[in-house]
Amino acid sequence: MTYDLIVVGSGPGGYVAAIRGAQLGMNVAVVERAELGGICLNWGCIPTKSLLKSAQVFDYMKHSADYGIAVEGEIKPDFEKIVERSRGVANKMSAGIQYLLKKNKVTVINGFGKLTADKKLEVLAEDGSKTNYEAKHIILATGARSRELPNLPQDGKTIIGYRKALTLEKLPKSMIVVGSGAIGSEFAYFYSSLGTQVTLVEFMPNILPIEDEEVSKQMGRSFKKNKIKVMVNSSVESVEGTEGDLKVNIKNKKGEIEVHECEIVLSAVGITPNTENIGLEEAGVVTENGRVVVDDYFRTNVEGVYAIGDIVAGPALAHVASAEGICCVEKIAGMHVEPIDYTTIPGCTYTTPEVASMGLTEKAAKDAGHEIKVGKFPFSASGKASAAGANEGFVKLIFDAKYGELLGAHMVGANVTEMIAELVTARKLETTGHELIKAIHPHPTMSEAVMEAAAAAYDEVIHI
Amino acid sequence: MTYDLIVVGSGPGGYVAAIRGAQLGMNVAVVERAELGGICLNWGCIPTKSLLKSAQVFDYMKHSADYGIAVEGEIKPDFEKIVERSRGVANKMSAGIQYLLKKNKVTVINGFGKLTADKKLEVLAEDGSKTNYEAKHIILATGARSRELPNLPQDGKTIIGYRKALTLEKLPKSMIVVGSGAIGSEFAYFYSSLGTQVTLVEFMPNILPIEDEEVSKQMGRSFKKNKIKVMVNSSVESVEGTEGDLKVNIKNKKGEIEVHECEIVLSAVGITPNTENIGLEEAGVVTENGRVVVDDYFRTNVEGVYAIGDIVAGPALAHVASAEGICCVEKIAGMHVEPIDYTTIPGCTYTTPEVASMGLTEKAAKDAGHEIKVGKFPFSASGKASAAGANEGFVKLIFDAKYGELLGAHMVGANVTEMIAELVTARKLETTGHELIKAIHPHPTMSEAVMEAAAAAYDEVIHI
Repeated sequence: MTYDLIVVGSGPGGYVAAIRGAQLGMNVAVVERAELGGICLNWGCIPTKSLLKSAQVFDYMKHSADYGIAVEGEIKPDFEKIVERSRGVANKMSAGIQYLLKKNKVTVINGFGKLTADKKLEVLAEDGSKTNYEAKHIILATGARSRELPNLPQDGKTIIGYRKALTLEKLPKSMIVVGSGAIGSEFAYFYSSLGTQVTLVEFMPNILPIEDEEVSKQMGRSFKKNKIKVMVNSSVESVEGTEGDLKVNIKNKKGEIEVHECEIVLSAVGITPNTENIGLEEAGVVTENGRVVVDDYFRTNVEGVYAIGDIVAGPALAHVASAEGICCVEKIAGMHVEPIDYTTIPGCTYTTPEVASMGLTEKAAKDAGHEIKVGKFPFSASGKASAAGANEGFVKLIFDAKYGELLGAHMVGANVTEMIAELVTARKLETTGHELIKAIHPHPTMSEAVMEAAAAAYDEVIHI
Repeated sequence: MTYDLIVVGSGPGGYVAAIRGAQLGMNVAVVERAELGGICLNWGCIPTKSLLKSAQVFDYMKHSADYGIAVEGEIKPDFEKIVERSRGVANKMSAGIQYLLKKNKVTVINGFGKLTADKKLEVLAEDGSKTNYEAKHIILATGARSRELPNLPQDGKTIIGYRKALTLEKLPKSMIVVGSGAIGSEFAYFYSSLGTQVTLVEFMPNILPIEDEEVSKQMGRSFKKNKIKVMVNSSVESVEGTEGDLKVNIKNKKGEIEVHECEIVLSAVGITPNTENIGLEEAGVVTENGRVVVDDYFRTNVEGVYAIGDIVAGPALAHVASAEGICCVEKIAGMHVEPIDYTTIPGCTYTTPEVASMGLTEKAAKDAGHEIKVGKFPFSASGKASAAGANEGFVKLIFDAKYGELLGAHMVGANVTEMIAELVTARKLETTGHELIKAIHPHPTMSEAVMEAAAAAYDEVIHI
């Protein structure tokens, strides 16, 4: 069977590329070895957001008296139901992808896709049969998986990864989370919120280490307030013991070994691209540091073979993969396409408070030689935040001093994952600080903090 | 005493103008007859948001089983505490304004300000004494109050306005709300949510009549689902009976009189500018239709006298008043100032779901002769909305067909009052539809619906 386009992998890179290809008149197939929608939809972004929503509702209930709501009797999170809801949301979304692919007449091929030396795609089905497919264009979008460290081998029982953390049978009494990126921090918050005693271990000097230092510090304080034990400049050396009864040797910031007991260890130390056995060597596709080398339009060195998402350089984020898929397919279709501007890419962490950011941190901006103006506005000075009981956090904006270019945006607080879009669009539209100050934000909203942070950078802030 | 600038009224127009004036080196006084911060802060935007947050928390608790949280025993809103919290938030914010004015060395003069024939400001203090003040520039920012209809005279007991609705002593069993603008709709939702049987009476064919028709229809359905009885094309003819036991004669859409019983009637039929007795006639300031006539920089016909906020033409919104105050003061200070672009002004209603909009409705765009492209994306197709259990609503964007100019944005859903800022800034920065499509919104967020709605307008939408 011959297609205009075959996409290998149906995650947010793959299925979006496939649908866009079909919209542009191509005859498209997508190859998937597991659930449609990939990790993001089945084992990542979506089910975690469901868990975190349950935690948020539980948080509201624990503090309901603050809002004038009385509860007689006990409030209990039903862990099984919380997980069940999360699986239900993921399954519904996966079924949604199936519907969208069908609606767009994209053929779904179940199996494991592999490039061949003659640039065909061999698909190994679950029953062991192999079928070859041909296509003018093949996009590799095979994604990534949880990274395994030698001293943290994941057995799914004592040391687990994010997949297992989404479907534990019961709420653990205690958990050590290794790695405080978005995934580690979200699970630390989720389990701690439901009552698990959580220790978060981070190798770097700050949690959420890719964020602006002020964001990381604020989150460190918030986590401590929420009874998460945070250990920075620390690393897990080894894990001993049996299921439910572990002794974890942690090298602390002084370089001493501390022994911590817990029921389970969650390893969240990053991801590994899925580039093995997909025929890169056979087809002669060039890689570098384990990632496929591509140009601005995601073309590999082999004509007709493309790669997007977590297997190429750049942030391993669902929305990046989707944007890359669209960019790649539109270029194939001969449209005029601008390369992706990676300086506008937002990143979000859905803890309470939330974290959202885009562009350069203060340190990165200085390191890059920018003269900068920094403006910060705390939600403690926001009327909406006070009314909502969500005073924690701030908006911090970084502008180039000379031209007023928005270099970075960093936020901690309620709903900031929804607020960051404004800054993404503003940077894309080449805003200056003064344009943000003069954009009339609605009152009373948390979003006024964006306008005020810009005003703070130019000594025009009203409310602090 | 002589000042560079005296501002009459300390609402969001007045106090912001005063602080900005002080920042720009002026010697400033502000005259206030009641609480610092004006209606918005003490009797409007801020305390209502506190009440609505309590209602939202109560909503979560009523539906907590959906999120996997079990409650043994009863959940009860404590109306007195909910009101107490709301007053506390307002008082805290008012104290904050006092702090900000002091910090900026703005003199606060307590009393009722009135222009004199020789362009001084006479302030009548509570003790009956009068003091004259002089200033190079006088800004009138006296705001507005609840509009009274002849057949709905407010006595604070049977027929009340928004002020009393913020501080009722007990939760009424039943209430008729007259007028379904932002204020009426917010109170209807709040009281209904806590258990009051609410009937919402609207004279126009749709509730929230200034919103896009699809928004109004959606909110009509949401309100009905939330057990609010909605009567459109209807009007209250008269109210009979005594406190707590009223008979309300409502002319329904067929023109027939229906008699409805309720404990209390809330009149929310708009506002009346406070232009009486402030010396407009004495000083010779020109008005039109009850509002002060001003130019693009809020200068009246009398040199040195300015007016901003609810007493001039334009939407009577806190953020508009603030922007006008800043614009006015910066022009006085000799800065280069661009007039306010009223086509970018957002409006928000903080019900559940929320409503937010900016610019032209679909009908208004067509009536104005635009050829348009309309894109709509429902939250039922959003992964984040599903995870959050907030599937209701949509984002609708209206573009000019020829140049792709964003003419209007209309949203219903959770957090849309935070999401509208992106469109405000985008319009200010003269976005086109394609720039919004290519702005990489973070996944998974509700804000992706903005990108998708833009894509829908150009037949590039992925997720529907």
